[in-house]
Amino acid sequence: MSSTEYRDLGRALCIITGASRGFGRTIAWNMSRLVKPGSALVLVARSGDDLRALQAELAESEAGRVGLVVECVVADLGQADGLEAVVRRSQDSFSEDIDHIILVNNAASLGDVSRYVKSFTNMAEVDSYLSLNVTSSLCLTASILQAFPQCPGLRRTVINITSLCALQPFRSWVLYCTGKAAREMIFRVLAEEEPDLRVLNYSPGPLDTAMQMVARSRTADPTVRKSFSDMFAQGQLLTCEDSCAKLMKVLLDDNYTSGAHIDIYDL
Amino acid sequence: MSSTEYRDLGRALCIITGASRGFGRTIAWNMSRLVKPGSALVLVARSGDDLRALQAELAESEAGRVGLVVECVVADLGQADGLEAVVRRSQDSFSEDIDHIILVNNAASLGDVSRYVKSFTNMAEVDSYLSLNVTSSLCLTASILQAFPQCPGLRRTVINITSLCALQPFRSWVLYCTGKAAREMIFRVLAEEEPDLRVLNYSPGPLDTAMQMVARSRTADPTVRKSFSDMFAQGQLLTCEDSCAKLMKVLLDDNYTSGAHIDIYDL
Repeated sequence: MSSTEYRDLGRALCIITGASRGFGRTIAWNMSRLVKPGSALVLVARSGDDLRALQAELAESEAGRVGLVVECVVADLGQADGLEAVVRRSQDSFSEDIDHIILVNNAASLGDVSRYVKSFTNMAEVDSYLSLNVTSSLCLTASILQAFPQCPGLRRTVINITSLCALQPFRSWVLYCTGKAAREMIFRVLAEEEPDLRVLNYSPGPLDTAMQMVARSRTADPTVRKSFSDMFAQGQLLTCEDSCAKLMKVLLDDNYTSGAHIDIYDL
Repeated sequence: MSSTEYRDLGRALCIITGASRGFGRTIAWNMSRLVKPGSALVLVARSGDDLRALQAELAESEAGRVGLVVECVVADLGQADGLEAVVRRSQDSFSEDIDHIILVNNAASLGDVSRYVKSFTNMAEVDSYLSLNVTSSLCLTASILQAFPQCPGLRRTVINITSLCALQPFRSWVLYCTGKAAREMIFRVLAEEEPDLRVLNYSPGPLDTAMQMVARSRTADPTVRKSFSDMFAQGQLLTCEDSCAKLMKVLLDDNYTSGAHIDIYDL
């Protein structure tokens, strides 16, 4: 725990994966408003068009007009060269004035939720899911920590966007639950190993995003699917903006236990 | 929960991965003594010599002399063709008299415990670990469930050999903890999806095996390494025989909640 409470994220280098839409896009916007002049965002996504549109919008924002650097990396994090491109661009965006490195492991895919465990006989399909959702977050985090080692005056924060699915099984969601459980464990181990780091597993709640639309239309299990439809129909889905505001407050208050699973509903 | 208590495992087809040594080998021996005549064991491991030695010993045992069929599959479960070989041999070993299919997902590797999270920058290394330890257990389980579908009079039990590491982070054990957390979630989802199955996540405790020797000699973190050395020096490691006896009792008593994490120290 820390007793310091921050009013901003500092002169930060923020690396955000899955930044082109949904929650990642909202994180990029929120961070752009909370960093000091001289900061840089490195935005990563597979979709180049959406990413460049976001970059253009951010350039015209208040932060952009006072010099926030916004870099885009169009990359598939399931591939080693995609990951290397993110690290290189992050190094290029670093300057001696930066006092805070923030890595947001947000990119994730839902996996095929239209099928049950017993249908997953194809190793290549599962390997590919785990590579994108688990391996990439471990290897990207390791690479960024090596590129920006512990150094006096430099804060380092690593955020993993997790889910209730990391803790609780849901029928027909085996890939997503397995990936989230694996990922959360990576960051719990990291928090134990590196006491100088701040590590946050943030569970943003059920968000009104494209992923939720797929969840409520494609989920094989009727009870699970209905629970998503009901949340939507009853207006219980959260906006990315509301959930991200809570995440930013957690980061500024900075009194979470490193490595802990922080659920929006606990805040 | 079930109210039935069994005196044996039935006329069973037992598929055991990682059967050539350590806990898997002990499971093979214990199951050979608890199955009825007409049963078959399908033993899987990468090491052909050890596996064939076990097969020869089992053939000369009491169960072997009254006709227990013991089949060996020398296979790398990290490869699709290895997995297919296990499924084929299991189908060949099935007969109409079999009334219980038991799959024991025991095979696992420790991963490199001599390094910390920040050193894992190589995606191929992590992908390969997850393929052997996570993907293979999902895809083998799915394939076996497809090969032996629900059918009146046929019990089906799926066991995952798990660990405290599935629940708790240990410094310098990121691959093992991540793999075990992922694997346990697969079987928790499976238990939710298939109420006719019996699914057991069994945590056998710290066993006096070759893996423990590597753990106490190679673990990077000095505190974690010392805790393993101390357990060894103070005679706190469990024998495979003792831990397996408890596992067999859990299977025979058959009153565990399907999908639950059952730790030997809770028994």
